[in-house]
Amino acid sequence: MKATAKAHTNIALIKYWGKREEKIILPTNNSLSLTLDGFYTTTTVDFQEELSADIFTLNDQSISGVQYDQVTKFLDLIRKSAGKDNLFAHVKSINEVPTAAGFASSASGFAALAAAGSKAIGLGLSDQELSRLTRQGSGSACRSVYGGFAEWEMGKKADGSDSYAVPIAPADHWDVRVAAVVLTAKMKKVSSREGMKRTVDTSAFYSGWLDGIPQDLKQLKEGIKHRDFEKVGQTAEANCLKMHATTLGANPPFTYWLDTTMAVMQTVQAMRANGILAYFTIDAGPNVKVLYLPENEKSVEKTLRDIPGVTDVRLSKPGQGITYL
Amino acid sequence: MKATAKAHTNIALIKYWGKREEKIILPTNNSLSLTLDGFYTTTTVDFQEELSADIFTLNDQSISGVQYDQVTKFLDLIRKSAGKDNLFAHVKSINEVPTAAGFASSASGFAALAAAGSKAIGLGLSDQELSRLTRQGSGSACRSVYGGFAEWEMGKKADGSDSYAVPIAPADHWDVRVAAVVLTAKMKKVSSREGMKRTVDTSAFYSGWLDGIPQDLKQLKEGIKHRDFEKVGQTAEANCLKMHATTLGANPPFTYWLDTTMAVMQTVQAMRANGILAYFTIDAGPNVKVLYLPENEKSVEKTLRDIPGVTDVRLSKPGQGITYL
Repeated sequence: MKATAKAHTNIALIKYWGKREEKIILPTNNSLSLTLDGFYTTTTVDFQEELSADIFTLNDQSISGVQYDQVTKFLDLIRKSAGKDNLFAHVKSINEVPTAAGFASSASGFAALAAAGSKAIGLGLSDQELSRLTRQGSGSACRSVYGGFAEWEMGKKADGSDSYAVPIAPADHWDVRVAAVVLTAKMKKVSSREGMKRTVDTSAFYSGWLDGIPQDLKQLKEGIKHRDFEKVGQTAEANCLKMHATTLGANPPFTYWLDTTMAVMQTVQAMRANGILAYFTIDAGPNVKVLYLPENEKSVEKTLRDIPGVTDVRLSKPGQGITYL
Repeated sequence: MKATAKAHTNIALIKYWGKREEKIILPTNNSLSLTLDGFYTTTTVDFQEELSADIFTLNDQSISGVQYDQVTKFLDLIRKSAGKDNLFAHVKSINEVPTAAGFASSASGFAALAAAGSKAIGLGLSDQELSRLTRQGSGSACRSVYGGFAEWEMGKKADGSDSYAVPIAPADHWDVRVAAVVLTAKMKKVSSREGMKRTVDTSAFYSGWLDGIPQDLKQLKEGIKHRDFEKVGQTAEANCLKMHATTLGANPPFTYWLDTTMAVMQTVQAMRANGILAYFTIDAGPNVKVLYLPENEKSVEKTLRDIPGVTDVRLSKPGQGITYL
């Protein structure tokens, strides 16, 4: 009863920004992401009759506290589905998503855990079922079940049965690259969970955000289909700016941006003015991800590394979905 | 038929951000400002029978082109009101509002021009009538008719007869100070006129902006009445953030902020975290205005001057309305 799975993180081009239900994680809008090969988690789940509690090691360190509780709580879902409530596991994760790169390791982490755990216990889930399960660990993780571009359909039902990701285009459809621009390893003042909640509850702009999602999704999917980089980039950048605008309309207002975040945004826009197509997107933190095409990789990387305050630039190609090792 | 008037610029704490009518300048929302003694324009208008066209000098330089056209077009309104369509004037303006300080010199400029011109030609306008006239030169200028805090009532009528500023509290009601933090003299990529129009026409957040104005006005007026600096500062800062958020939701999106703008905002918020009450507000440009109380002047000025990228800090007290010299 042992299985190992590898899952990659993903970067949302249409952001997941708001929950309609907190406990089983149901979103207020569809989101669409690109899975990235550079950042991933490999997890082995080994269910053993002789264990009386789960054991969790991350990068060979024994973990307790909040992270441990998240893992066991998620394993409870798997145990329950399998009708084996008292079967505990040894979970070993190796995380290749540096926290400092500004990616939520929760996306690849929960996707790998869900895949390895459900396989180890013999659930035999379809991709859709796996995505729905993964969603309950971390919302954006449900998109990491698929490679390339994936859309998380928010669904309408209260039980979440219609809320899961679907594949839009595989990794080999289009070689769009992403540079993760690392600015700071400082702790955020407002967590993404708290920021999302405050925005949904108080922002003057939240309904404006939701109203624009269908059009943004339509444009982005057209752009992906036709490999229209300008359309994809413009739509993603505009969607990111709208997401961050909603935080400025919250009560009290807040922002994830730093002066250096703004400097990277300005530099990307200046690159475009100079004929190099590049676009940015930013999650609930200060770091910036820059979309570009392979032929511009060298100049994009150099330009980004030269910005004062940038501590690292990590490049990535489109990545595969879950793989079992 | 000669008169000289001095008018001060003002800084909006609830922003004027959108026109419902472009030609006679009618806004989509009320706004509220503080008139500042540090930045002003002094203008002499001398109507002379023997002139066959207006003459305009600004800081002793003869002016032609767009600025000249704005002045003559505005004098046309005054001539028409007085029934003297063919009477031209020699207009001399001295502008003590450095463009680099990031204040629109149009506010003090049109207020001084309206006051001197209407007095010189003998119109005998009330403050309300003068404010209504001034509005047609530059919207925010209508608030500079009054000292201290003034509110521009947007009005509802199509002819603009109910759209003018009213006094909220005189300059001596409360010594709130403003530091103008100068970052750059670069030309803006998007003018305030164009940015305002694009936002009204396309922003996903424009209705959210308008919806919040009544509450912001109510809070700000309560704060002014009770000299509650925290309430005034929080309301002004939040209103500014909302205004700038609307530009991020425009199509195409844009921002007036630079990385250095963000650095000043972060510094002001850090000052507050360190117990020094200070709040920022930003008009349609990169420079930042910081509200503070007299007892904190030294530390606020020093802290702001120490921010990399800040080229000047100009301090100002509440200013008087129009004065005739």
